[in-house]
Amino acid sequence: MAIIKEQLLSTIYNPDDLRKLSPEQLPQICTELRQFLIDELSCNPGHFASSLGTVELTVALHYVFKTPYDRIVWDVGHQAYSHKILTERRDKFFTNRKFKGLSGFPSPFESKYDTFTAGHASNSISAALGMSVAANLKGENDRKVIAVIGDAAISGGLAFEGLNNASINPNNLLIILNDNDMAIDHNVGALNQYLVNITTSPSYNKLRYDIYRTLVRLKLISAEHRGAILRFNNSIKALISKHQNIFEGLNIRYFGPIDGHDVNYIIRVLNDIKEMSGPKLLHLKTIKGKGYAPAEKAATVWHAPGKFNKITGERFIVKDNNLPPLFQEVFGRTLVELARENKKIVGITPAMPTGCSMTYMMSEFPDRTFDVGIAEEHAVTFSGGLAKEGLIPFCNIYSTFMQRAFDEIIHDVAIQNLHVVFCLDRAGLVGEDGVTHHGAFDLSYLRCIPNMTIASPMNEHYLRHLMYTAQAKETGVFAIRYPRGRGSLVNWHCTPMILEIGKGRKLSDGEDIALISIGPIGVSAQKAIIRARQQGVSVAHYDMIFLKPIDEELLHEIGKKYSRIVTVEDGSIKGGLGMAVIEFMADNGYVPRIKRIGIPDQFIEHGTIPELYKLCGMDEDNIVSLLTSVW
Amino acid sequence: MAIIKEQLLSTIYNPDDLRKLSPEQLPQICTELRQFLIDELSCNPGHFASSLGTVELTVALHYVFKTPYDRIVWDVGHQAYSHKILTERRDKFFTNRKFKGLSGFPSPFESKYDTFTAGHASNSISAALGMSVAANLKGENDRKVIAVIGDAAISGGLAFEGLNNASINPNNLLIILNDNDMAIDHNVGALNQYLVNITTSPSYNKLRYDIYRTLVRLKLISAEHRGAILRFNNSIKALISKHQNIFEGLNIRYFGPIDGHDVNYIIRVLNDIKEMSGPKLLHLKTIKGKGYAPAEKAATVWHAPGKFNKITGERFIVKDNNLPPLFQEVFGRTLVELARENKKIVGITPAMPTGCSMTYMMSEFPDRTFDVGIAEEHAVTFSGGLAKEGLIPFCNIYSTFMQRAFDEIIHDVAIQNLHVVFCLDRAGLVGEDGVTHHGAFDLSYLRCIPNMTIASPMNEHYLRHLMYTAQAKETGVFAIRYPRGRGSLVNWHCTPMILEIGKGRKLSDGEDIALISIGPIGVSAQKAIIRARQQGVSVAHYDMIFLKPIDEELLHEIGKKYSRIVTVEDGSIKGGLGMAVIEFMADNGYVPRIKRIGIPDQFIEHGTIPELYKLCGMDEDNIVSLLTSVW
Repeated sequence: MAIIKEQLLSTIYNPDDLRKLSPEQLPQICTELRQFLIDELSCNPGHFASSLGTVELTVALHYVFKTPYDRIVWDVGHQAYSHKILTERRDKFFTNRKFKGLSGFPSPFESKYDTFTAGHASNSISAALGMSVAANLKGENDRKVIAVIGDAAISGGLAFEGLNNASINPNNLLIILNDNDMAIDHNVGALNQYLVNITTSPSYNKLRYDIYRTLVRLKLISAEHRGAILRFNNSIKALISKHQNIFEGLNIRYFGPIDGHDVNYIIRVLNDIKEMSGPKLLHLKTIKGKGYAPAEKAATVWHAPGKFNKITGERFIVKDNNLPPLFQEVFGRTLVELARENKKIVGITPAMPTGCSMTYMMSEFPDRTFDVGIAEEHAVTFSGGLAKEGLIPFCNIYSTFMQRAFDEIIHDVAIQNLHVVFCLDRAGLVGEDGVTHHGAFDLSYLRCIPNMTIASPMNEHYLRHLMYTAQAKETGVFAIRYPRGRGSLVNWHCTPMILEIGKGRKLSDGEDIALISIGPIGVSAQKAIIRARQQGVSVAHYDMIFLKPIDEELLHEIGKKYSRIVTVEDGSIKGGLGMAVIEFMADNGYVPRIKRIGIPDQFIEHGTIPELYKLCGMDEDNIVSLLTSVW
Repeated sequence: MAIIKEQLLSTIYNPDDLRKLSPEQLPQICTELRQFLIDELSCNPGHFASSLGTVELTVALHYVFKTPYDRIVWDVGHQAYSHKILTERRDKFFTNRKFKGLSGFPSPFESKYDTFTAGHASNSISAALGMSVAANLKGENDRKVIAVIGDAAISGGLAFEGLNNASINPNNLLIILNDNDMAIDHNVGALNQYLVNITTSPSYNKLRYDIYRTLVRLKLISAEHRGAILRFNNSIKALISKHQNIFEGLNIRYFGPIDGHDVNYIIRVLNDIKEMSGPKLLHLKTIKGKGYAPAEKAATVWHAPGKFNKITGERFIVKDNNLPPLFQEVFGRTLVELARENKKIVGITPAMPTGCSMTYMMSEFPDRTFDVGIAEEHAVTFSGGLAKEGLIPFCNIYSTFMQRAFDEIIHDVAIQNLHVVFCLDRAGLVGEDGVTHHGAFDLSYLRCIPNMTIASPMNEHYLRHLMYTAQAKETGVFAIRYPRGRGSLVNWHCTPMILEIGKGRKLSDGEDIALISIGPIGVSAQKAIIRARQQGVSVAHYDMIFLKPIDEELLHEIGKKYSRIVTVEDGSIKGGLGMAVIEFMADNGYVPRIKRIGIPDQFIEHGTIPELYKLCGMDEDNIVSLLTSVW
């Protein structure tokens, strides 16, 4: 392996170089690409198993299509590392997911080969359809547009809407279904089962393709002529009389399933179908983690494994004996504890049982835990239905993905004020996943919804208190947001308490300034306050706990006493805690000067959390500066 | 007809009474119900054609199922009038859609028979699945849950997510597909075409049902036993070897299509399948407007026809010669004018071409106009794809339905700052459609999104100016919101001008108070200012036009001069203009007293716009009171 390492790959700057190779050289490119990925990702962590599964597909796409003139739209995009490497970014790939480095997802800001924003699942078909229809309207009929979507992402409602519209307007969209039978966790849902069934009995489709191919080669039908294709398909159907395919039911020509790791076979099929007009779908069976044995065996763990020893497959796992736990761990374990006592509790996750640690609940109460797949909208409305019948759903959705279900929160839960507990994981800045994944907006988009209770715990104990409170009281719709990563308390396993809804707490007294925080960023604020005190500035600290209803008694106390207020939150300054404080003061005739610390009104790139906190002025140093400066 | 009128219907207070009737009496109930609907709706306008199409279905459901113990979940709900009439509300039906009267949609606050909020399409399957799974977990296995969804609503992504999850957990969900081949306009999409195809060749499914029924009757298989059913279906498939059904592909038993206007046949089928475990779908063919000839002929017009002469079928259309035009009319006609000049402009509507007046564009530029069906998410991401390739999409979505696409606005448009013009129709209070339909939140949920330009015209001229500006400049993502109904200018057809982005205007000077408004409510504010001046209070009036970027120069002028500010907007006070003004003043050290007029932080019921404005303190009288009172 070492001998051929990058022998060919190093000659490839962009797809033009790739297209100069002979088909016989492509398997070696794939081998080298895979080795490159293993080498790089063992040192510079990132998404791993997904990109290993798409090596051959990526090579085949750039070999067959004239990128960047032809457009490849990657869905989610964590499978697009080989694409980045082949498109002018091999030498920069060591900066992947690093501050000011390459994005871990396709990004149009980074490369002309990255045609559309990726990160949130299921958008590729609609975006690619738009591009394809645009090409048609602009008279660029030779442009090919290809959406590459996984079997988990295609189960999202947006993808279905795209499929349902794909055949309506003239276009030559090609959808590649990259089917590895996995989401980050195991894939679920009826469509997934359907795809498994297709795959285990592929004879009809294979036969159909083979006959089609023969007819084209013998020039008995023309590949460009849609009418002929339709008639052809109908004849074959009549001939073989087997099941109609779901995609064909939606007027999309279906091809497959084929082996997604046979690069030259993929190329042959792509060449065969690429000139066919009208929307078509090629179903590829791939193996997540392909070519790296540990990843093939445990694709969920190897989805984003962190650093590892590429020879032994041993992952460098931080020993956390003396570290505070992950908020996710506290959520998962607390949920099980609560579910043992309260039989009404059920758990709902859209395809993130491992990520949010609902796996604990899933393993102890499988009948009361629902992984609904990549379907945030359904997750919320389904929770509404469960709550309407008296159960108490804990519906855990990452803050950024909860944006997908904004309408369902309002329409299917908040209007009826149903007792659903929304747990917004990955709230605030998330670090390396970057612009598409920051949970920046939740405090803003939730605060305008009537009936909502919105809370964020400063530490693990308060997460437990909030979860306990949310199920013990008839609270109506209740949102708890907390960030990715570790809290601040090693001894996190306290006895949970009932909190009074809408009551904050004073953590420390002070004379000069009031600092009001919400969420775990309050811990940085606390440290900043100590440093400010050392510099002679006396700062009172209030942890609001609840954004809505907000503690008006506490705010009156603050409004009466302080002429300077600093608000600190890990969320957009347009609409969260800072805005709530400004609103309260204005409504009640207080006229303090107020400075807000939070995520500024712009899209934030990727980097480590400390780098991004600094970028946004949310770091401890900046809080100290603000507290100790004159304003 | 007049003789039998309400002869039977008047004996029915609730479904218990209905269930005492003999099957032979049911056609008469249907006739009477239909006549009742025609009588009532000709005087008290409401949704009309949809409910005419579901008379037999409604009677059959309440006859077969033990409502309210069994749960019927209506999707959208404008087809549920017969349901309301049969469930204790016949005597109140004359208050339908009136202030403090019955809601025009099912409402759990109104009746135990209304099991879930309805109004936004496509939620019924997920909600009903939640209820069904809850019944199972609670040991109430005899409870039946029925989702009734139309062929347009089932094309929404949320509905697909529900279907994809329907077979995952134990439940006995029954989905009724009410297929009238219509949305409000004609239905579109591949699934719709698929349903048409099923209907035109129903032989296989009918045969399958007939065989199944015979086997059950002969007690050769047990209807309760899922395994048997599955084996049975497989045998029949093998026997008849026809297409597999899309729903069956998703593991949902499919029955139909059957005649949705043969009440006793529907009852027979429902009785046959109701004890069958596992999810199942019954496909009913219905005629929108059934039983009223004018409505059958023109279902779109008769979707919500207003008052009409029930004998002649003549609609009472307000002569609008001397009235200002509808904003919708101005939008639709201006769009065509712009599209004639700018070939890059394309129009996108999710199933509302008539409602938003994109019909003008559709008729003149059919290739550049896209009705994507009930699929707001797709509409936005598809627009993103079109814009990425250099076109300028005008994507018109009602404010309340835009909530569905919140994530897509952020992820698929705003991050790349693509040049998409979002036109948010029905922004602000919408009147009789009520709580689910008010466009209350858009200013709040859009303002937190970076890169967004957000504007609202005070009148028709400014709508034209804004639309003109939005396509003439490279603006990036641009949202224009305007309300349902008429503007204020009879001579609306001005020459459109380029506006400076983020610049407001001063309409009048004043000494005592500054009133800052956005949108057409500024016209009421203008009148209020004149009345206040008559009472000796001198008020300056500023029309901001843009919420974001907001005109800071103007706000500095206001902050320097005025100690009292009133903000006026037709949107939630949590996050819109008022909050932006408060924020600016706080950030810039101004300390005016600020009073905000807007939609309070609660869900607002239905009524006429004047009634609701009064309820919310947004009417002219209340603005006058505020301007002339001491604070």
